[in-house]
Amino acid sequence: MAGNTFGNFFKLTTFGESHGEAIGGIIDGCPSGIPLDLEAIEAEMSRRKPGQSSIVTSRKEPDTIRFLSGIFEGKTTGTPIGFIIENTNQKSKDYSHIKDTYRPSHADYTYDKKYGVRDYRGGGRSSARETASRVAAGAIAKQFLKGITCNAFVSSVGEIFIDKPYQDLDFSKIEDTPVRCPDLDTAEKMISRIKEIKKDGDTIGGTVTCVIKNVPVGLGEPVFDKLHAQLGKAMLSINAVKGFEFGSGFCGAKMKGSEHNDQFNADGTTKTNLSGGIQGGISNGMDIYFRVAFKPVATIMKIQKTIDSQGNMLEMQGRGRHDPCVVPRAVPIVEAMASLVIADFMLANRLTKA
Amino acid sequence: MAGNTFGNFFKLTTFGESHGEAIGGIIDGCPSGIPLDLEAIEAEMSRRKPGQSSIVTSRKEPDTIRFLSGIFEGKTTGTPIGFIIENTNQKSKDYSHIKDTYRPSHADYTYDKKYGVRDYRGGGRSSARETASRVAAGAIAKQFLKGITCNAFVSSVGEIFIDKPYQDLDFSKIEDTPVRCPDLDTAEKMISRIKEIKKDGDTIGGTVTCVIKNVPVGLGEPVFDKLHAQLGKAMLSINAVKGFEFGSGFCGAKMKGSEHNDQFNADGTTKTNLSGGIQGGISNGMDIYFRVAFKPVATIMKIQKTIDSQGNMLEMQGRGRHDPCVVPRAVPIVEAMASLVIADFMLANRLTKA
Amino acid sequence: MAGNTFGNFFKLTTFGESHGEAIGGIIDGCPSGIPLDLEAIEAEMSRRKPGQSSIVTSRKEPDTIRFLSGIFEGKTTGTPIGFIIENTNQKSKDYSHIKDTYRPSHADYTYDKKYGVRDYRGGGRSSARETASRVAAGAIAKQFLKGITCNAFVSSVGEIFIDKPYQDLDFSKIEDTPVRCPDLDTAEKMISRIKEIKKDGDTIGGTVTCVIKNVPVGLGEPVFDKLHAQLGKAMLSINAVKGFEFGSGFCGAKMKGSEHNDQFNADGTTKTNLSGGIQGGISNGMDIYFRVAFKPVATIMKIQKTIDSQGNMLEMQGRGRHDPCVVPRAVPIVEAMASLVIADFMLANRLTKA
Amino acid sequence: MAGNTFGNFFKLTTFGESHGEAIGGIIDGCPSGIPLDLEAIEAEMSRRKPGQSSIVTSRKEPDTIRFLSGIFEGKTTGTPIGFIIENTNQKSKDYSHIKDTYRPSHADYTYDKKYGVRDYRGGGRSSARETASRVAAGAIAKQFLKGITCNAFVSSVGEIFIDKPYQDLDFSKIEDTPVRCPDLDTAEKMISRIKEIKKDGDTIGGTVTCVIKNVPVGLGEPVFDKLHAQLGKAMLSINAVKGFEFGSGFCGAKMKGSEHNDQFNADGTTKTNLSGGIQGGISNGMDIYFRVAFKPVATIMKIQKTIDSQGNMLEMQGRGRHDPCVVPRAVPIVEAMASLVIADFMLANRLTKA
Repeated sequence: MAGNTFGNFFKLTTFGESHGEAIGGIIDGCPSGIPLDLEAIEAEMSRRKPGQSSIVTSRKEPDTIRFLSGIFEGKTTGTPIGFIIENTNQKSKDYSHIKDTYRPSHADYTYDKKYGVRDYRGGGRSSARETASRVAAGAIAKQFLKGITCNAFVSSVGEIFIDKPYQDLDFSKIEDTPVRCPDLDTAEKMISRIKEIKKDGDTIGGTVTCVIKNVPVGLGEPVFDKLHAQLGKAMLSINAVKGFEFGSGFCGAKMKGSEHNDQFNADGTTKTNLSGGIQGGISNGMDIYFRVAFKPVATIMKIQKTIDSQGNMLEMQGRGRHDPCVVPRAVPIVEAMASLVIADFMLANRLTKA
Repeated sequence: MAGNTFGNFFKLTTFGESHGEAIGGIIDGCPSGIPLDLEAIEAEMSRRKPGQSSIVTSRKEPDTIRFLSGIFEGKTTGTPIGFIIENTNQKSKDYSHIKDTYRPSHADYTYDKKYGVRDYRGGGRSSARETASRVAAGAIAKQFLKGITCNAFVSSVGEIFIDKPYQDLDFSKIEDTPVRCPDLDTAEKMISRIKEIKKDGDTIGGTVTCVIKNVPVGLGEPVFDKLHAQLGKAMLSINAVKGFEFGSGFCGAKMKGSEHNDQFNADGTTKTNLSGGIQGGISNGMDIYFRVAFKPVATIMKIQKTIDSQGNMLEMQGRGRHDPCVVPRAVPIVEAMASLVIADFMLANRLTKA
Repeated sequence: MAGNTFGNFFKLTTFGESHGEAIGGIIDGCPSGIPLDLEAIEAEMSRRKPGQSSIVTSRKEPDTIRFLSGIFEGKTTGTPIGFIIENTNQKSKDYSHIKDTYRPSHADYTYDKKYGVRDYRGGGRSSARETASRVAAGAIAKQFLKGITCNAFVSSVGEIFIDKPYQDLDFSKIEDTPVRCPDLDTAEKMISRIKEIKKDGDTIGGTVTCVIKNVPVGLGEPVFDKLHAQLGKAMLSINAVKGFEFGSGFCGAKMKGSEHNDQFNADGTTKTNLSGGIQGGISNGMDIYFRVAFKPVATIMKIQKTIDSQGNMLEMQGRGRHDPCVVPRAVPIVEAMASLVIADFMLANRLTKA
Repeated sequence: MAGNTFGNFFKLTTFGESHGEAIGGIIDGCPSGIPLDLEAIEAEMSRRKPGQSSIVTSRKEPDTIRFLSGIFEGKTTGTPIGFIIENTNQKSKDYSHIKDTYRPSHADYTYDKKYGVRDYRGGGRSSARETASRVAAGAIAKQFLKGITCNAFVSSVGEIFIDKPYQDLDFSKIEDTPVRCPDLDTAEKMISRIKEIKKDGDTIGGTVTCVIKNVPVGLGEPVFDKLHAQLGKAMLSINAVKGFEFGSGFCGAKMKGSEHNDQFNADGTTKTNLSGGIQGGISNGMDIYFRVAFKPVATIMKIQKTIDSQGNMLEMQGRGRHDPCVVPRAVPIVEAMASLVIADFMLANRLTKA
């Protein structure tokens, strides 16, 4: 369990460093007979990739997926789907200055201590480039989940946030702005804020909210593998994530039971949905929604003090092309991971009854 | 992967319903040669068990653990540790009135839909009684983790919260009050609030904060099994939990990189610790700290409208002996799950280098 | 993966030493809604238990199973089935003489070296007593597999073997003799041979053959988890097993392709069945059959030289009540493990198609 | 657990069909800091690949491995090792005649029934081409296992077998002949036999014996994951395998305890080694040896009757370039799988003691 596999039934195993030859993965457990729309997969990849707009990194990576197995005549065959994404734009020299340097709040120090060695050309395995494999696999999971929709969007950037319940938002507007906030007034403010931050050589955090609709009743396993526990793990495994809450979340901790309980309608739906579509770890058929907190990107263009591997203090300044705010590009990653979790539980649920 | 096992190396599998014959579990993977202090295990059990004080349920459960295997002459043998806790105080009749009724914001409806059958005597497998097995296993993990300390405490009840950083708290005072808040002034307010809520037949939520000290550098696996992702899953698997954040958490999402980055000292420690002791999913040797949100208990003594399994609307009122606020008893459960996660990664880490 | 769990979907985890308080296990993944015939389970337990006849050990163990969870109103609930079997007849003193002694061809030496400690009262975890938990779980798997029949029988004892294909045997006669050989003439010879061996203070090996009928086409996973690979692992995990072959087995290695290939009938069945019901690791609907080799029991009543834990040479003689030949009691264990494998793949197969 | 992963700690997941774009895999769990000799890996690949001699298939596949990650500056980094092997010599048209035909004793029928679809160009996932990925991973495992030697050789072809204990063989001669039998007189007879069989358009089975030396005491997990149970599963997962035996094997089933028990020397070694280096599922430091039975290759050049997917009877004749006897090329595959098993348990063993 070296930590590079996600899922129990619809399983993704990934490999690859940011500056190695290629990244990629194997999806094992995808059922046979699913027609795959390869263009839709490429479209998801494009949402994640760098260089899309002025508020994200200007780095260019084509991120073309090459599927090597498990697909025949346009359909999945039930055998493992192997895929690779070549690293064509490695620019290793951008990173040579940090060979012996531990960047503050990066994984340089911890990887070096853990493994006794690290690929110092970029973040190696801890680079967000690894998430490209997740988006590829998540795009296949989405196609398996036909009918279940999974929409993530940026709900805050720094102190700027959407001041409306998600029910009042039009998800078709998520892609209308590069910041992926469907509330267009708020989106404008967010974009201005990110540009300001970027000009300042700084970075800023934010949150992504995700809403999953049409999930059947009964997904999730009791006790340790509760539906929201797996969703939480999935989200917390994304780079830069610091927190996860679903349904009423941290606000729920301030409430009384008489306010918080969701009263039933006769058909088993509930009048309110503070449960966030999950009761006792199992989906109840209502919308599942959750919120994910991302810290500001650690690479800033300002001068910082830090240490090298011998413990010498030195000054460094971020170089290269980095995101001033990670949340717009995190949106498709959140959707990918959520789709993988739901696909996994859809399969798990086939095992429940005699 | 039916969801009743936690951990990859120090593995706990649990069984048991609240009103069955017994609950229990198997710990598989605990190394041989660990001297076990059985009294310390019982002491942990006592912290979780009901009937401890006037602010928790008055239900009495002796919660005596019977170890059946894996321990010989006071030490672990490396073989699986089987244990059971008899259900001596079942009082099934307390629950007969809910046989066909789905209690609002409980797992009754979702279990019934998922499995097509449920043990209607109490919460069955979704009852918090299951957590007794976790506390037993966590107590053994704690003994394996000699030197690493794991302290949880109640950091808020409803709107009342500790307004100090954890560094200013004296953890030796956690057990001084039944509410398990080490800030004694705040503890008093919390206790008053819980009593008020109880008198009103209502319940209230709260948060638990946990601090783990002396964790070696290097724990956690990259990518999917990041240290905080497993901690998050562990916490979200506890009944009534709605959210998890570590280090800067949701506040971090509002910050700038220049504020958020933790500057290194020459020895690899950091001047600040917004990272929460984890960078890139791997421990960096600083304190690990996180916060867990618990919703108010769903069973209230007020009359509520609900439905039965035929979809008939009816009124119900909670009976029996329930907790007005779950967080004081959740403290040892949070510690148990955190200890299991750390124990698991301590073993995993033995596999890292050649 | 400390090796005490079997199966991926219908999972059994066992615990318990021969001379501890109890043995038992947890079945996790058994679907809900299966009516359980508890008497049928006890009947399987009786087939395995010692003291059944003059050709097996005279040790008495009641082997009563106590189910603790996962069953409600006569049916499985889908939650884990916990069970224990108390060790009521421990007679620890029988073993005190071997506290520091390594019995030849037992696991004493290897356990001691591996763990640095062992429960020297009997075989501890390596005792065949552990298989009682397997039989209990296998009996539940059998009930899940309604319609699929799994019959094992003794096919040889020492040099005496059944000289007929299994198709010519009447499985209803398996239980007619204590040796569990359905060919009654051969059974007589086997019984005489075992009595002779017993009188001599010696032991003897043998083989068990198992035939599984009515397995649907399509069970087994490609590549590593082939149906026969899991069956082989299951059998090789039983105490004293030295070999496994299925279909043509080792004889197949002497054959030519033109002799060995199974020609199809128009309906997909095959005229011959040298494949043993499995092609490419996947069941083809024909009978699955395999043969398992058991070595002679290592505990003999003759004087043997051996060593103690300090490397001193000494003489020892088996005491207590041991089986002169293990195969008659191995029959229900082989069936139990085979049933667990088939149950596991029946569940796995639900995941195959879209 | 879709069956494409082997191992619990040193884990290999493979993908790829014989006529897809590429095959490959991910090794997850290989420790950091192992210097890798890439030429030694290529040498192992050459031993398995087709076209080596006149007694194996004349098909040419360059089998060049491309490592994509997990290796930096000549050493493993502890992150997953991704690799691919392009399928450059696909010749799909060779197989068009079998699109709707089920070849006798192949996996065509069972795959089609299981998945409802199959890549009919060659054996797809059930092709022995998949084993190239195993050899690649096994070659890395071998380098991790420095000092432990693992030698397999052909011990029989049809009725011709080596009539000597393995101790009398000179393993340095294994590669002296294309049949990989170190007893050169027997090797000559085997080669003649295979040539005769090939001329006749037929195929023949055989056995491979494997000897592992210098295994430390203590490898193997009790109960289900016994060392020989995992070795058996590993071998039975190789294409065309019908049986596995270790130590005394099936012969042991004919013996008496007084003959079979291995007497100890004072240093814990044993005078005889009928145990095959494993007692109670755990290595005892003596040589581990086992034997694997391979059936004759199912593709023969003779005319056979068979059916198509509509159940029509038809005649077919093998075409293309196939092995008349699979065992010579199976030798490196047996070694690879054995090395993966031992590597896995070497890691597992790090978890045993406190």
